[in-house]
Amino acid sequence: MAPKPLDYESLNENVKKVAYAVRGELYLRASELQKEGKKIIFTNVGNPHALGQKPLTFPRQVIALCQAPFLLDDPNVGLLFPADAIDRAKHYLSLTSGGLGAYSDSRGLPGIRKEIAEFIGRRDGYPSDPELIYLTDGASKGVMQILNTIIRNENDGILVPVPQYPLYSATISLYGGSLVPYYLEEEANWGLDINHIRQSVAAARMKGICVRALVIINPGNPTGQCLSEANLRELLKFCFRENIVLLADEVYQQNIYQDERPFISARKILLDMGPPISTEVQLVSFHTVSKGYWGECGQRGGYFEMTNLPAKTVDEIYKVASVSLSPNVPGQIFLGLMVNPPKPGDISYLRFAAESNAILESLKRRAHIMTDGFNSCRNVVCNFTEGAMYSFPQIRLPPKAIEAAKRAGKAPDVFYCLKLVEATGISTVPGSGFGQKEGVFHLRTTILPAEEEMPAIMDSFKKFNDEFMEQYEDYRGYSRM
Amino acid sequence: MAPKPLDYESLNENVKKVAYAVRGELYLRASELQKEGKKIIFTNVGNPHALGQKPLTFPRQVIALCQAPFLLDDPNVGLLFPADAIDRAKHYLSLTSGGLGAYSDSRGLPGIRKEIAEFIGRRDGYPSDPELIYLTDGASKGVMQILNTIIRNENDGILVPVPQYPLYSATISLYGGSLVPYYLEEEANWGLDINHIRQSVAAARMKGICVRALVIINPGNPTGQCLSEANLRELLKFCFRENIVLLADEVYQQNIYQDERPFISARKILLDMGPPISTEVQLVSFHTVSKGYWGECGQRGGYFEMTNLPAKTVDEIYKVASVSLSPNVPGQIFLGLMVNPPKPGDISYLRFAAESNAILESLKRRAHIMTDGFNSCRNVVCNFTEGAMYSFPQIRLPPKAIEAAKRAGKAPDVFYCLKLVEATGISTVPGSGFGQKEGVFHLRTTILPAEEEMPAIMDSFKKFNDEFMEQYEDYRGYSRM
Repeated sequence: MAPKPLDYESLNENVKKVAYAVRGELYLRASELQKEGKKIIFTNVGNPHALGQKPLTFPRQVIALCQAPFLLDDPNVGLLFPADAIDRAKHYLSLTSGGLGAYSDSRGLPGIRKEIAEFIGRRDGYPSDPELIYLTDGASKGVMQILNTIIRNENDGILVPVPQYPLYSATISLYGGSLVPYYLEEEANWGLDINHIRQSVAAARMKGICVRALVIINPGNPTGQCLSEANLRELLKFCFRENIVLLADEVYQQNIYQDERPFISARKILLDMGPPISTEVQLVSFHTVSKGYWGECGQRGGYFEMTNLPAKTVDEIYKVASVSLSPNVPGQIFLGLMVNPPKPGDISYLRFAAESNAILESLKRRAHIMTDGFNSCRNVVCNFTEGAMYSFPQIRLPPKAIEAAKRAGKAPDVFYCLKLVEATGISTVPGSGFGQKEGVFHLRTTILPAEEEMPAIMDSFKKFNDEFMEQYEDYRGYSRM
Repeated sequence: MAPKPLDYESLNENVKKVAYAVRGELYLRASELQKEGKKIIFTNVGNPHALGQKPLTFPRQVIALCQAPFLLDDPNVGLLFPADAIDRAKHYLSLTSGGLGAYSDSRGLPGIRKEIAEFIGRRDGYPSDPELIYLTDGASKGVMQILNTIIRNENDGILVPVPQYPLYSATISLYGGSLVPYYLEEEANWGLDINHIRQSVAAARMKGICVRALVIINPGNPTGQCLSEANLRELLKFCFRENIVLLADEVYQQNIYQDERPFISARKILLDMGPPISTEVQLVSFHTVSKGYWGECGQRGGYFEMTNLPAKTVDEIYKVASVSLSPNVPGQIFLGLMVNPPKPGDISYLRFAAESNAILESLKRRAHIMTDGFNSCRNVVCNFTEGAMYSFPQIRLPPKAIEAAKRAGKAPDVFYCLKLVEATGISTVPGSGFGQKEGVFHLRTTILPAEEEMPAIMDSFKKFNDEFMEQYEDYRGYSRM
């Protein structure tokens, strides 16, 4: 009998090629163990509220009032909500046409796009045009739309850092393009070497690939590094010379845990460089309410900003956005709140500032606890998390462990991470899900478990790791020195 | 100089091919007129709250509490919220892991999927499996994902009704498949004739097209008809014989304005038919909180249910859903509330029932006012809106009007609709955006303007139309008799 259209063998091959490790084998195994009653610490995905982070009070007050606008006419509203939250809710409702239940313009509410443009203007020192800012259901959806706009066929190449966040590899597979990898330098604190990019492009072109876009993730995911101004300048010059679009994933721009390398947007450097680069290089930048210290992942609010894209292209992107009508309106309002938080003097300012600082300071301490913890383990080395919310330690697996993995039919890092979750409940993602150099093994964890639980988690990790190493070590050498 | 990757000439051709009339030329012209100060009645998109429909109170109370869970500990909460809304908010928060700010499982919260399965079970009389229900950011995103799973290349054909909702034509273009049209019979109240589908399939196969899926929109958009049980049986037999997946867009299942043809789900008929059809035909059904009498479009809550899909395919769909992490969580909770509204005896029941009935009864009256209004106009004929929220009158354009449109470089129906919006502010969508038979012209309006404004709107339409006809009529005949 012929296979049916939705039988596995009949599906779109690009769908089958998609790999997405963040919710892959390890996640599924952890979910099973959880069902069996084991306590699981989900550090596989950057999902702060799932690990106990409380939402910021002010934005939630505003959004609750926007969802229940009839409360604004209730004489008791002041008993539950501060006056500035009430004012802000009225402000955002005035930007909608029909409240949160009405579709917005497919690009998002004009008033919110204006607030975002003002935020970008303040951040970069160059004004931003709201007409070039489109809101999305989380940043991932925006990345997917832009890649779908760029990729024409399997000869279109997208430069992606390795290790990378697998949204990129998955989407490139889904839309039938070619991923062109460029390696980050673990020894140089996961820095980016423009010569490696140049070599990757040359190698891809030899294979007939037309390299059309370059993805940067700054601060890095899973690698946590912040790109320097010099690095960004080199990248933009390269994009100019080689006629490549820059896609700047800047969703962790608020998550910075050191002072030497603050976040600088690709757009600021681009505009600093002046013509012809500032007027020629095409750039799309992404941001979200899911990350930063807000961590409002479940609300799915994101945006992208387009620089140097011709009007006809902007119209095409608008047209395709229209097919799914509008991004969710509550998520749009969260974006407005994020770029326009309470200011000194506002009733809610002190509380908001205290809550924000507590989260950011704790993340910084957790970044240190985690890096130090990993570096205290046998055969584990780990760069410091300068930004974002991940730790990506290298695990130097002994040859015997690699052999044992082979016998079990698993990649060595998958083998290690499965043993880890089974022994300790710590659910991580193997480095192979993000890409790593041949013969080198990593895992990714978030730095998000509650600070008070962190020492116990790192103790439990160390105990597991050191016993694992004991069991498989044969003193003839490691997987990599 | 070579075009840049995001210059128009370099874009993915499939993106350029997408057409989406609901927010196309007419919408853009209406938006311009609005900026110039003209009062516009936006009937181009089914967006009830934008036209003044108030949200239902109970679901908004629940969602406001879920967004601001700290209110649940406030001694004054009972002054603003009824006890059953408080209980329900606690219930939904207990289904999340981390409240509304945490990503859910990529398929949606298990607890909500269970509530939807119970609703489907009650509706159809056959139990439904939560593992086969996936939540999405609105139904459109689900339709797009399923079509992306099915379409492999330009030889894969999708049967789509004409007139159709352009989500289908747009998505088929975007993913590079072929649209295979089948015509609905205007003379038979937009009924579906299985012989036409058979002929369409035969014609497509002659051209080398592999017909893989059949879309039905029931109740119809833009046509408003409800499919009969006999029709659905024929369709399912046809899908079985021809090895075609049925995609059932049932987002208007709550919007029914007559008693002769109630909504019946494709799934119920499928399961009624027994083996082998009930166990073999692959079916995906779509629903949403955007339509029905809730009209919560801006919340973007939708789901699809899969019947007879093999586990490996379900896993692939899960994997791809994971790439964008999770649908928005507030929208998921709206779905839970929609399938599980207050029950008789609940504190909020009477208010909820009164609000719901008021909306549904008013929609029914508006469907009548609109159909009767159109049928009172010169050269306009219109089937009654049995369900959904649209009216799709045929406009019999005189030859002189068609000539005038030609001179203006416009399609005749676009010409008419542009004149209409300029004269009256009524923003509609020309029939060509949905597809219509050669030489026959329509427009689509929603039945959503406020009931008290409806008579004036229909008067204004009649005045415009009758003057238009007067101007262009030459007594030698119409575009179609």
